[in-house]
Amino acid sequence: MPRHRCTVYSESDYDDDDDNITMRCLSCEDDYDPDDAGTCKECYDEANETEEELKRQIQDLKSKVSFLTLSSPLDAPSTTDLVLLPSTDAFSPSIPAHKAVLVSRSPVFRAMLENDMEESRSGTIKIADVSYDALRAFVNYLYTAEAFLDNQMACNLLVLAEKYQVKHLKAYCEKYLISKLNWEKAIVNFAFAHQHNANQLQDAALAVIMENMDNLTKNEDYTELVDSNPRLVVEIYEAYLSKQVNTAATLI
Amino acid sequence: MPRHRCTVYSESDYDDDDDNITMRCLSCEDDYDPDDAGTCKECYDEANETEEELKRQIQDLKSKVSFLTLSSPLDAPSTTDLVLLPSTDAFSPSIPAHKAVLVSRSPVFRAMLENDMEESRSGTIKIADVSYDALRAFVNYLYTAEAFLDNQMACNLLVLAEKYQVKHLKAYCEKYLISKLNWEKAIVNFAFAHQHNANQLQDAALAVIMENMDNLTKNEDYTELVDSNPRLVVEIYEAYLSKQVNTAATLI
Repeated sequence: MPRHRCTVYSESDYDDDDDNITMRCLSCEDDYDPDDAGTCKECYDEANETEEELKRQIQDLKSKVSFLTLSSPLDAPSTTDLVLLPSTDAFSPSIPAHKAVLVSRSPVFRAMLENDMEESRSGTIKIADVSYDALRAFVNYLYTAEAFLDNQMACNLLVLAEKYQVKHLKAYCEKYLISKLNWEKAIVNFAFAHQHNANQLQDAALAVIMENMDNLTKNEDYTELVDSNPRLVVEIYEAYLSKQVNTAATLI
Repeated sequence: MPRHRCTVYSESDYDDDDDNITMRCLSCEDDYDPDDAGTCKECYDEANETEEELKRQIQDLKSKVSFLTLSSPLDAPSTTDLVLLPSTDAFSPSIPAHKAVLVSRSPVFRAMLENDMEESRSGTIKIADVSYDALRAFVNYLYTAEAFLDNQMACNLLVLAEKYQVKHLKAYCEKYLISKLNWEKAIVNFAFAHQHNANQLQDAALAVIMENMDNLTKNEDYTELVDSNPRLVVEIYEAYLSKQVNTAATLI
């Protein structure tokens, strides 16, 4: 076989014809032009090893999560030592739980149960402004770090997470609500996030609002917000103004 | 600048001189020969995204592990509802714990505590053949999925993990012991692993023994094992024979 005129190449790793030189990618096994080159072989091997190592770490962590997850107290209430009671529904059943778990997950429950407060003595914690379903999902999350969310449940759990300072659950709900954000929901989410100190959600909602300033005053939620919390509407305009000033500065 | 005679190359991604063509790796930014090419640019970008995604997953899982980890009952014994007692030391203090945690981590504790057995009624579980330090580390692991191991502690915890069927801890100890395996320890570990159904450790120890068959009969632990458990010594020879037969078969 006649050798190509660029004799530094070996034939094994790339193909050539008269007009074109291509190499074969070790990952997708397609041919590519030298213009589209990515890495050298050493870095390719290293990246592969890194990926394998990261996957091993994920496997180990998943197994640790599974080990540390507790059974829901609703499935096995025999060893529970207190109950939670949703105050909105006088006829709803109470939800059994363990002091040890509540104390471990929430500094608010810790303060409540480790000091000699009414809740600690009576073994009953009344939770205001919450439905049975939301409270049940909240308690379940404290044991399993899992919850089935829709928009309403994410809002309900975020409120409870903020009230009882369960940071992990709050971040979980914010992440869900951010993933579902759009212009329809942006103003309501912005106001909700502000009310419950959900900074990440508030920033994300504000970013969506900034992209839709042309339609702002036509939005019904906007009109309501002007009535209910004009100070918050000012925050939107301040952010808009600041963005415009910055954009102008970069154009000079 | 005169263009190289292989005109299909653009100059941006590779350098050339009269005798040699090199490209620049996007990862290490070193030059390389086409012979040492790894991936195309598309696969390089994809691999980068995958790595980022895996790292995000690891971050999420670590935060979940941290959320699910319970405080050790030794740090906050106020809500505990039973004690564990190491039977080897009559004067050692008892170790407080929560039925709910023990039940959740071990099917043996579950059976013991969910049925109306002596331990459940008295709130005291006596643990045979264990030191205070090992039992304390065992209980701690049930809450935190963490333990500080040396060879002795790994063996002690493996025995407890097998007895109380705490699979996660057993795997953790096996992994540690395998990482410390060498010819000095291989026979002792092989016998120990066999006694406590630690299959992975047993296989790993057997592999080390297979590599040192020349020295087998000179090893003191071997002599002891022939006395104490000749059936297990037969297993070593059977594995050796089987390996030899297989090797011979591949050579034909």
